[in-house]
Amino acid sequence: MSTTPAFAATPSPPYYAVIFTSLRSDGEDGYRRMAERMVELAAMQSGFLGIESVRDADGFGITVSYWTSTEAITQWKANAEHVAAQEMGMRTWYAHYELRIAKVERAYARSAA
Amino acid sequence: MSTTPAFAATPSPPYYAVIFTSLRSDGEDGYRRMAERMVELAAMQSGFLGIESVRDADGFGITVSYWTSTEAITQWKANAEHVAAQEMGMRTWYAHYELRIAKVERAYARSAA
Repeated sequence: MSTTPAFAATPSPPYYAVIFTSLRSDGEDGYRRMAERMVELAAMQSGFLGIESVRDADGFGITVSYWTSTEAITQWKANAEHVAAQEMGMRTWYAHYELRIAKVERAYARSAA
Repeated sequence: MSTTPAFAATPSPPYYAVIFTSLRSDGEDGYRRMAERMVELAAMQSGFLGIESVRDADGFGITVSYWTSTEAITQWKANAEHVAAQEMGMRTWYAHYELRIAKVERAYARSAA
């Protein structure tokens, strides 16, 4: 991605991850604008730690957002603009998605020497 | 992906996720063969539930594998062929990676009508 660093700078565990795996449907209809806006909006939420997102040429994507607590995730899920995007999502943008909420217990990072 | 279904058919939580976020370096040197072999090998491990993986044209990728327990993850990490791939990984294939182990507590799925 060009606008945000690809890796999320998360703190030491524990914290929470929302793993959103999705297959895009064919409709564009504002998808890119919505996706950028949701990242922008998520970053403004209390408890947001970071986000990592990839989509391939076949329209299959994984986005993982990181949060301090399940309460922060619940609040983000209930954000009005996000709710509207969620409703539009299944009508227009996604053929299928899987959403998993997970507690990160351990984390490691490595960079090439 | 063409060889495996994109979405992992995971059971009801709880189960575990290994979130592997990585940036490829320029070296090919057997990367694709190794990546395919690791998916094949992971699928043969006790406690393996499924895998979801995406990499974009810039070389940024997210792979999430799902497991029944942390013990299953520990065994997979210690698999001899996997250890060799891990060692080769930072020498040749990855510029940077983040690895997070998380307990999936809730999960939802939706398909377009």
